[in-house]
Amino acid sequence: MGFRDECGVVGIYGADNAATLTYYGLVALQHRGQESAGIAVSDTTLKAADGNTDGKINLHKGMGLVSDVFKKEHLEQLKGSIAVGHVRYATAGGRTIENAQPFLNTYKFGSIALAHNGQLVNHTELRSLLEDSGSTFSSSSDSEVILKLIVREFIEKGGKPGHSLNENYAENKKLFEEAIVETARQIKGSFALCIMTQNSLIAIRDPNGIRPLCIGKINNGYILASESCAIDAVNGTIIRDIAPGEIVFIDKDGLRSVSYAEIKKQTCIFEYVYFARPDSEIDGIPVQEARYRMGEVLARESKIAADVVIGVPDSGIGAAIGYARASGIPYVTGIVKNKYIGRTFIAPTQAEREAMVFVKLNAIANDLRNKRVVVIDDSIVRGTTSRRLVQILRRAGAKEVHFRVSSPPVKFPCHLGIDTPSKGELISSTHELEEIRKEIGADSLAFISLEGMLEALEMCGDKASCGFCKGCFCGEYPV
Amino acid sequence: MGFRDECGVVGIYGADNAATLTYYGLVALQHRGQESAGIAVSDTTLKAADGNTDGKINLHKGMGLVSDVFKKEHLEQLKGSIAVGHVRYATAGGRTIENAQPFLNTYKFGSIALAHNGQLVNHTELRSLLEDSGSTFSSSSDSEVILKLIVREFIEKGGKPGHSLNENYAENKKLFEEAIVETARQIKGSFALCIMTQNSLIAIRDPNGIRPLCIGKINNGYILASESCAIDAVNGTIIRDIAPGEIVFIDKDGLRSVSYAEIKKQTCIFEYVYFARPDSEIDGIPVQEARYRMGEVLARESKIAADVVIGVPDSGIGAAIGYARASGIPYVTGIVKNKYIGRTFIAPTQAEREAMVFVKLNAIANDLRNKRVVVIDDSIVRGTTSRRLVQILRRAGAKEVHFRVSSPPVKFPCHLGIDTPSKGELISSTHELEEIRKEIGADSLAFISLEGMLEALEMCGDKASCGFCKGCFCGEYPV
Amino acid sequence: MGFRDECGVVGIYGADNAATLTYYGLVALQHRGQESAGIAVSDTTLKAADGNTDGKINLHKGMGLVSDVFKKEHLEQLKGSIAVGHVRYATAGGRTIENAQPFLNTYKFGSIALAHNGQLVNHTELRSLLEDSGSTFSSSSDSEVILKLIVREFIEKGGKPGHSLNENYAENKKLFEEAIVETARQIKGSFALCIMTQNSLIAIRDPNGIRPLCIGKINNGYILASESCAIDAVNGTIIRDIAPGEIVFIDKDGLRSVSYAEIKKQTCIFEYVYFARPDSEIDGIPVQEARYRMGEVLARESKIAADVVIGVPDSGIGAAIGYARASGIPYVTGIVKNKYIGRTFIAPTQAEREAMVFVKLNAIANDLRNKRVVVIDDSIVRGTTSRRLVQILRRAGAKEVHFRVSSPPVKFPCHLGIDTPSKGELISSTHELEEIRKEIGADSLAFISLEGMLEALEMCGDKASCGFCKGCFCGEYPV
Amino acid sequence: MGFRDECGVVGIYGADNAATLTYYGLVALQHRGQESAGIAVSDTTLKAADGNTDGKINLHKGMGLVSDVFKKEHLEQLKGSIAVGHVRYATAGGRTIENAQPFLNTYKFGSIALAHNGQLVNHTELRSLLEDSGSTFSSSSDSEVILKLIVREFIEKGGKPGHSLNENYAENKKLFEEAIVETARQIKGSFALCIMTQNSLIAIRDPNGIRPLCIGKINNGYILASESCAIDAVNGTIIRDIAPGEIVFIDKDGLRSVSYAEIKKQTCIFEYVYFARPDSEIDGIPVQEARYRMGEVLARESKIAADVVIGVPDSGIGAAIGYARASGIPYVTGIVKNKYIGRTFIAPTQAEREAMVFVKLNAIANDLRNKRVVVIDDSIVRGTTSRRLVQILRRAGAKEVHFRVSSPPVKFPCHLGIDTPSKGELISSTHELEEIRKEIGADSLAFISLEGMLEALEMCGDKASCGFCKGCFCGEYPV
Repeated sequence: MGFRDECGVVGIYGADNAATLTYYGLVALQHRGQESAGIAVSDTTLKAADGNTDGKINLHKGMGLVSDVFKKEHLEQLKGSIAVGHVRYATAGGRTIENAQPFLNTYKFGSIALAHNGQLVNHTELRSLLEDSGSTFSSSSDSEVILKLIVREFIEKGGKPGHSLNENYAENKKLFEEAIVETARQIKGSFALCIMTQNSLIAIRDPNGIRPLCIGKINNGYILASESCAIDAVNGTIIRDIAPGEIVFIDKDGLRSVSYAEIKKQTCIFEYVYFARPDSEIDGIPVQEARYRMGEVLARESKIAADVVIGVPDSGIGAAIGYARASGIPYVTGIVKNKYIGRTFIAPTQAEREAMVFVKLNAIANDLRNKRVVVIDDSIVRGTTSRRLVQILRRAGAKEVHFRVSSPPVKFPCHLGIDTPSKGELISSTHELEEIRKEIGADSLAFISLEGMLEALEMCGDKASCGFCKGCFCGEYPV
Repeated sequence: MGFRDECGVVGIYGADNAATLTYYGLVALQHRGQESAGIAVSDTTLKAADGNTDGKINLHKGMGLVSDVFKKEHLEQLKGSIAVGHVRYATAGGRTIENAQPFLNTYKFGSIALAHNGQLVNHTELRSLLEDSGSTFSSSSDSEVILKLIVREFIEKGGKPGHSLNENYAENKKLFEEAIVETARQIKGSFALCIMTQNSLIAIRDPNGIRPLCIGKINNGYILASESCAIDAVNGTIIRDIAPGEIVFIDKDGLRSVSYAEIKKQTCIFEYVYFARPDSEIDGIPVQEARYRMGEVLARESKIAADVVIGVPDSGIGAAIGYARASGIPYVTGIVKNKYIGRTFIAPTQAEREAMVFVKLNAIANDLRNKRVVVIDDSIVRGTTSRRLVQILRRAGAKEVHFRVSSPPVKFPCHLGIDTPSKGELISSTHELEEIRKEIGADSLAFISLEGMLEALEMCGDKASCGFCKGCFCGEYPV
Repeated sequence: MGFRDECGVVGIYGADNAATLTYYGLVALQHRGQESAGIAVSDTTLKAADGNTDGKINLHKGMGLVSDVFKKEHLEQLKGSIAVGHVRYATAGGRTIENAQPFLNTYKFGSIALAHNGQLVNHTELRSLLEDSGSTFSSSSDSEVILKLIVREFIEKGGKPGHSLNENYAENKKLFEEAIVETARQIKGSFALCIMTQNSLIAIRDPNGIRPLCIGKINNGYILASESCAIDAVNGTIIRDIAPGEIVFIDKDGLRSVSYAEIKKQTCIFEYVYFARPDSEIDGIPVQEARYRMGEVLARESKIAADVVIGVPDSGIGAAIGYARASGIPYVTGIVKNKYIGRTFIAPTQAEREAMVFVKLNAIANDLRNKRVVVIDDSIVRGTTSRRLVQILRRAGAKEVHFRVSSPPVKFPCHLGIDTPSKGELISSTHELEEIRKEIGADSLAFISLEGMLEALEMCGDKASCGFCKGCFCGEYPV
Repeated sequence: MGFRDECGVVGIYGADNAATLTYYGLVALQHRGQESAGIAVSDTTLKAADGNTDGKINLHKGMGLVSDVFKKEHLEQLKGSIAVGHVRYATAGGRTIENAQPFLNTYKFGSIALAHNGQLVNHTELRSLLEDSGSTFSSSSDSEVILKLIVREFIEKGGKPGHSLNENYAENKKLFEEAIVETARQIKGSFALCIMTQNSLIAIRDPNGIRPLCIGKINNGYILASESCAIDAVNGTIIRDIAPGEIVFIDKDGLRSVSYAEIKKQTCIFEYVYFARPDSEIDGIPVQEARYRMGEVLARESKIAADVVIGVPDSGIGAAIGYARASGIPYVTGIVKNKYIGRTFIAPTQAEREAMVFVKLNAIANDLRNKRVVVIDDSIVRGTTSRRLVQILRRAGAKEVHFRVSSPPVKFPCHLGIDTPSKGELISSTHELEEIRKEIGADSLAFISLEGMLEALEMCGDKASCGFCKGCFCGEYPV
């Protein structure tokens, strides 16, 4: 797939080694963002008797993979039992350390750190509102806006010093939670948030549940994560998904859930198609199961006589297995992806690419030679990758190449956090099906229908858990 | 699989940007070694008229991945049209820059660089022989011995100055080729060698063909590589495998092949089981095809009633697809491997590993829950990884776990280059089948038979191309 | 000298390559701080015709020396003609990238970057004031407070969009300058500030002129710097020092000076004793001249019969030359400092230090053997370094060691930016002169008198330019 | 001074932490070379009873400063009690890790590591000799030749296995020492060598003593070093200089000295002028004392009426102090060198250099304004630095600039290890005195006479210790 977005968030409450657990959680979510990584940890002693003061939130973040940003000494220095972490995917403009998350701010009565996956649509208005009263910003991120809104609300509501353990505790806690609710109501767009104070951890998911967020149990504590695979990674037990429009507060008094808005579930469908790891389960729908089903529906909708079915790694494989299962055409590997191509790889120049692009993807010629090949990819965006793929398959000897796509044509850019090109660059927005087929050089081409895709998803979960944003297919967005 | 060895070699002759092509070739072979990488390039102008003198061989090598060792400036500085490159896997003792390859030595009449995949069994004797006349060594590598042997032979034969382009050219060329042949006859063990002088490139493969080596065409030049996927990577055309006991000389006069020894083909069977990339073809046998076939034979030999078949990534997947195909049990993904776990990853401590090992591998619970699962791995060495795997599958809800192994029990350590543990640590050497089953916690366990494996391989190529080393299964080695 | 503080600031207006000039200026001020370095640059086109919009301020900062933080690509990316830069000395607690300067904040109508040398005494009150209305902070630095105060003032005064080049320009400029003045009046303590907007550069010095700041001319533009040596470094012409209580505004309309407070000059005397480079001139007093004079006065006040005079490098050398000149005792080098001991040096362990501390400082035995030695250091803080020094001199054969100090006894910790130990650790606060002499093992010990030091300084400049903070000697501070 | 050469060597025998001591020794010698650094350590247990076998020599080396190449973990891994270390200055061509020292080679009966300061003049012949019998080389260094010669001699003499502790010990020791002597006799040129086997340390100095080498005592062991300041650094006691033509063997039987050649002392005079640290003493002559004396002679030879004397840092300062003392003209600092300009500094472009070269050196204007200035530099090579210096002084207001040079005109390039430009680039080789004066823009110019320089040196030590190479002044070389 030619576009990417998305970040990954983790939150830990009540573990001795919160930073280490967050580290492993982030490594499990690394596929959601490789530009920057960060962890903030509170060293407040949770088990302390009353009278203890709150601790300090320490933060380390940097550019690159989780395992490049964090060395052993960083984890050792980040002592404490509450943490939030973040991995970030970034578009060209924002690739600076200033935009790396979590954001940590101190305010009148304490500190707050925040990790955000998503994109606000009323970012400019809210920023302007804050600026009117003199707020300044150290990044161009909409996440910093959320942080400041929370503080603003809390101050305005009459927040007092001594967040946690003094006579103001009960009242402050109430006020702070109100500030959180108030903030959640003001921000519009997609957001899955892990927020921490010195003594509490908070999860917020937008009323449409556009971005995923789930919660699990670890020993005596809790873990929040964008995907359940991060809970698995630290051997936690998945409790459930945070509901759209839900806020969960976790502190020494336990866990409390608030529903702050009218809910209309419209999860980003591309989480299932592409973003999420196959071993994750989002809103009751197992991701890989969804991919199998999409493949099955696709087979039913656009069957063709062929010798083998192959999937484009990594996210096309699930649909290919499903397609093979439903069509009876044998599944073979067919294409291999080089997993050593990372940030430091010297990409071929344009001229070299023409001559020898086959470092990243290569065909298994023996799987394809003189065969009629069905190849399943998860999407077509600009069409360039698909054309390249068809070339690789033909070079390897494929007799026929039948291109099947496990998502409907992407015709509209996303305004909720996905890094799509402009409408004019979306090949399905500017070309008819037959034109696209010619453009990519396939013998046949078919996309799954939107209905088919929804049907596939509904097969996997209970109906109630369904409800998806179809903005990029239809142009109608939740917000 | 719990053991690793192997290096990857690349050679280029006659390309303007030999270093860049070698770089992409090495990236394609990165799976064969991640400890060190290096490229040597000769800046001799191949098209120069007679009278020109030979150029200089420049070398850059370092510890780490190809893309970490080489930055753009290195490739720019390594100008020239002949090159050899190397990626190295290293056991603990030899992880130093001194042992990184290629080795470059200057001698009386020029320079030689050498990249070696394999292990000599008469290394000590040859080293001793050289030492008797005063040779000294700057590494503990047997590859340095080969380099010095070549020089010794050439000097003794009466080699003269002016390797390439003066009155001594024809005679020197003859003498040098004789020196190469003589050296190839003296060294015993496994070796696939790419050797370069300032104006020629040479390939040598041991008489048993234990390690793979193949040759391809690129524009006006040639490429040598451990695996054909590296030829694909630079858009070359595969010509053929270097034959066991063959030497290929490439220079301005073209390509010349010499057979220097009696041949008895005994390729390392684990190239097919584990080492090689699925998109490579070795000695006429497509690697992934071999894996499918092993899975098919395994299914026939040790069928069991089950609901799903899964493969342990990455090398168990081929056999799993084959097993599923032959058994009729559906193939599902089942297990996911985190591809972001590299050299800088902070591995969990022993205590953490007990509690939360699931960062590297995770199960797709929905594929496994309440299912009878057949899991295919490529081998069992110590048994610890297998036990861990069974735990992961059971945690994910597998009702039954039937462990199937696509290679026979490994009972003997390898003396030809593979980094196996000692005999006492090989679980199949010290335990009976039923004991191993208990140890790893599976409901049933079966290995493919040696005959079955050979049958599978013979299905893929013509009989003539077969002949394998079975040392680690039977204890009988080619040398 | 055993304590350190201080930062270095640079500002550039009106040069094509502002970042490069700032880089060289910061390298010249590197002695003022080695913990972090940063440069912010505005890419506003200064020569543009009316109607053009303001540019963007880009920032790069990092931990370490200027030459480690900035690579060629950073300077190339930081295009523009207005810049501020900062090098930072940090105490243990604040050694994080979050506290590195310059600070860059965007606000309703633009961006501001700020580089600060000094320390506010009403930091907590001001921070609290801002926090009351909801401000949050991303660092623990008092410099961030100043930035937010400026914005607050500007917003409250009715600042409008379009800072520079539209119909609001004149009014906004007036309001912004008022905001700057207002802010300068609110902050108390020591501060030498370089502030930039997208189209202007501003210098502010506190009413006591505690920290130095000067201005120079470069081609068609201006340079601000903590010390004149940075102006020399870029071949600028020194114009003058920024006066205590002065603000200088520089923009396309030229340069405008405002005096915003009643002035009482009380420059930190340690700038002359220790911090500043000998080739700088601060408030009309050449630094090295001041050191010579202190040495002369010291010789007059505490003459002793001796064979040689030596100075402790680097800052004790000036006084030693002066002492030798006034006393007639020959000046010799005597002690050498290893200039290769930087951040990455593996300091000896305590045990090793006992046995072999002589890596950092070493004596020239031939200068000292059997000699009566006068050694001049710039200060005694804890006394440990002085004791060590006496040991080194005695090991080298000195017959007598007469310790002379070119500053009076330091008895009180500094509250205006210098990183002094607590009162209890200041040896002059807890010990009498004779006790100190015994403690450090010298044959005699004398400090310059406070009167003597002031006399020395007055000799160098005109009376008017004098006026110094004597807080650490007397306990009376300007604020 | 405009040219540089030279390396620094350290050897340790009989200390528990040989690597750490070598590290501090190398840091003390860092001024002799900043391109690469390395340490080799033998882990042989020296105190072991008979019957123990020899240990292994481990090596770590890299490009850069000692403190960049060595991290704590390297020193921890390099366990053992015998070590040799090296810092290297390199000319452009040889700046590769392959040429970094020490060199470590294994041979038939053991390992040898070698650190070399100097340059062989018969390098090509010796290399050729070795190559005739098939030797190959992994570097272009003449030091590798020495290593191989030693081994060759030892093998030819009938060396046997079991270097240290078996029945062959006594005989082998004798043969090995003969091999060392034989090698020392064959190599011609300048060499100060620290050589180690697994159980011994050896010092060799060439018969002319061109490069310095001295020995000291540390606890129960010994230290070898290029300069005595390294012995001071580890709190050792200087024993004496290794004599020209002397070999010192150190092992468990103690220390043994051999004189292997007719001696004609001709130490490189530039050790005193420029290379050595002022706190070192070489061949009985204290370096800084020599510089004072050169300054005194220079004052006598070319007195001039002036107001101040200044020295160009770092090595011109000693002569300036001497000049001031002898002439009665006051010594002032005058020029400051920025000590933060290291390998990572982004040097100004040519254009920038014209405009603003003053980052590296700056004048103290107050020392110079309206003054007649005598400036002492240690040498003039190309003349460009001197011209630049005069410009800096004039910019700072100097009324007259009288340039004095504490070495005679350099007219011939060095063939013994110093990186001088070719004869045509040596300004004193192509220009008359008056022409040079004009070229550099000084009001007057004088060099010390060769006789004067020798007189100065003879004043410092006893006559017997004198005897110098004057090759670069006269064109007559020792070899």
